[in-house]
Amino acid sequence: MAKAAIMGFGTVGSGVYDIIRMNSEKLKASAGEEIELKYILDIRDFDDHPEKHLFTKDVNDIINDSEVTVVAEVMGGLHPAYEFTKELLNAGKSVVTSNKELVATYGSELLAIAAEKNVNYMFEASVGGGIPIIRPLNRCLAANNIKRIAGILNGTTNYILYQMITNNKSFDTALADAQANGYAERNPAADIEGHDACRKIAILSSLASGKEIDYNSISTEGIVNVALEDVRYAAAMDSVIKLIGYAEFLDNGKVYAHVAPMIINNSSMLSGIDDVFNGILVTGDAVGDVMFYGAGAGKLPTASAVVADILDSVIHRERRSKIGWIKTDEDVCASADDKSFRYFVRTESSAEDAEKVFGGITKLDSLVENETAFVTEELSASVMAEKKAELGGVISAIRLFA
Amino acid sequence: MAKAAIMGFGTVGSGVYDIIRMNSEKLKASAGEEIELKYILDIRDFDDHPEKHLFTKDVNDIINDSEVTVVAEVMGGLHPAYEFTKELLNAGKSVVTSNKELVATYGSELLAIAAEKNVNYMFEASVGGGIPIIRPLNRCLAANNIKRIAGILNGTTNYILYQMITNNKSFDTALADAQANGYAERNPAADIEGHDACRKIAILSSLASGKEIDYNSISTEGIVNVALEDVRYAAAMDSVIKLIGYAEFLDNGKVYAHVAPMIINNSSMLSGIDDVFNGILVTGDAVGDVMFYGAGAGKLPTASAVVADILDSVIHRERRSKIGWIKTDEDVCASADDKSFRYFVRTESSAEDAEKVFGGITKLDSLVENETAFVTEELSASVMAEKKAELGGVISAIRLFA
Repeated sequence: MAKAAIMGFGTVGSGVYDIIRMNSEKLKASAGEEIELKYILDIRDFDDHPEKHLFTKDVNDIINDSEVTVVAEVMGGLHPAYEFTKELLNAGKSVVTSNKELVATYGSELLAIAAEKNVNYMFEASVGGGIPIIRPLNRCLAANNIKRIAGILNGTTNYILYQMITNNKSFDTALADAQANGYAERNPAADIEGHDACRKIAILSSLASGKEIDYNSISTEGIVNVALEDVRYAAAMDSVIKLIGYAEFLDNGKVYAHVAPMIINNSSMLSGIDDVFNGILVTGDAVGDVMFYGAGAGKLPTASAVVADILDSVIHRERRSKIGWIKTDEDVCASADDKSFRYFVRTESSAEDAEKVFGGITKLDSLVENETAFVTEELSASVMAEKKAELGGVISAIRLFA
Repeated sequence: MAKAAIMGFGTVGSGVYDIIRMNSEKLKASAGEEIELKYILDIRDFDDHPEKHLFTKDVNDIINDSEVTVVAEVMGGLHPAYEFTKELLNAGKSVVTSNKELVATYGSELLAIAAEKNVNYMFEASVGGGIPIIRPLNRCLAANNIKRIAGILNGTTNYILYQMITNNKSFDTALADAQANGYAERNPAADIEGHDACRKIAILSSLASGKEIDYNSISTEGIVNVALEDVRYAAAMDSVIKLIGYAEFLDNGKVYAHVAPMIINNSSMLSGIDDVFNGILVTGDAVGDVMFYGAGAGKLPTASAVVADILDSVIHRERRSKIGWIKTDEDVCASADDKSFRYFVRTESSAEDAEKVFGGITKLDSLVENETAFVTEELSASVMAEKKAELGGVISAIRLFA
């Protein structure tokens, strides 16, 4: 019998509870022993809950209970999740989490404590909701040197772009629609400005390289400037615009990463990730391209990943699972100029001026009066910035995914 | 230091060798110790090989070497792979394999021996080549009751259908093309008659249910009868035809499974699995739909999965990984009538007769003179067979994937 606790009884926490109750037989068979839920921590009152005796408001009840061996931290936010997790790991308990902000910010430290205490700190649910990605990347693709990860990692922005692409809605209308459907928060900044995707690609690239990639060092651009005209030009190129968390593991040993809208040709599997779904394309030197697809958020999908980690922690109680990375003093991140992309550009300038400034360009049929649209050759970020300034009148510039 | 052997130096075996040499640093970091390749077993001579000292023709060299703890069986075929695997497991060595025929035929017995000897028998490479599917299904989705698995599990047939769909080639031309490109064998029966996909869905459904699903009990239909006209009708329905290994885990506890061409609407992620690629859509009661996509065959992709299993065997040397199923006396397989599908039907009979026999049908615009095409309501296999006989003149009948 393994005893577990849930910290935070919000959407994901109540989903973890539901799965533990709903699939107890399946869980017992998988873990090889019964999983008993002993505590649920929440600051709110749940006096009407049928199992109200499980609830506590004091984290010390869990920390000081030597019977509890695994805790699901599904509170979200940095504090007090960070302090609680640290105390639990130090008390010799495994912690599993869906908290991407905490993993991206304090992951290295928490992983080091877990290693020292010979317990697990697992975070399958922190990226891609219910999609198996952390364990497959770490274990199933362990024979590969990972060359690239490109993911649609945020369901809210994918929904907004999907509405723009298929229903011709403007960004503002699509955002309002996402908010009305509960897919976007009233303050949608974390999603639409790309910060959520940034934390997730930081976690994936840290895991693939084995070294901490600080999310603050990842160039992050959201979708707020994507116009319906950009979407139409993309369609004319047999492509769609998606917000991509991108990491490339360069031959010089460094990691190039960004979060930005990219133009994805319809021949790529990433182009078919519609609605609120997530998809993560991983390229290994042996396996080539593999893609993982599914619900990137939601109560039961995310809880499914949390409970899988609970099971794995129980199975690996004696011998911890080696999933994680370390913080190093090396400069792991490549500069923006270590990697070049082709860009789709719209400008108020003439095609002649564009040709003059950019050299080899592929001109596109103009879909808007008084503007020129074209695709550049591969350019580094700084060369692109220079040429953009030199040309002037640039309305949008979006990288092509290749 | 863990010592390993490869049995069979064909395409996959040489790929395993290449990865062990090419990514030795990565493997050491993942396993936590060095992987030393001690033997390669093959009946052929490899006197020109730079590491010819590794080769042996006598399996007893491996069986009797107590230093060897893990062996990759990549010989293919049932015999002597079965006998060798049994002896190795009995000698206390873990075996990892890409041999789907062996796993589907003798899996239960070999898994039982592995359990008894406290070693691993792993088979990630037996389904989906390099795509991580066995471990994700067993571990990452362990919190779920699996409801359905639907996979494009055979690259050869997917290539042939893709050529029919996109290049308007007939089945015979597409097959010849696949043979010319090395995607199909000179005797292509195992692929085009669905036997390869049948073994793979047997493995996946055994794994998901925990009980052996005998591949002989799975109704198996290949793609030899799929005509270009069927492909065109599918296109008119905004769909494509794919060969699907299908398993549904019914509420009565039984497993319904088939291998057959199915009509897949373009809104499904499965419709986008093109060329020789594989894709496996898994539906869990908590996670909903997740899909795994990638190269389903090929030297390095398949070897990538074999080496991942070698690593996992080394990591789990003391505590074996619980992946597998048992053979039971229960009747696990549902009857064909436990599950109904809508069918696309082409017939020489009139629309009136079709309506009379089938009741509610959705008539399609005819693309071929002197024939009627329609879609039925949901029908069980035996009702479909009866009505087909009653109507007469049926040219094709293909299930719709929903």
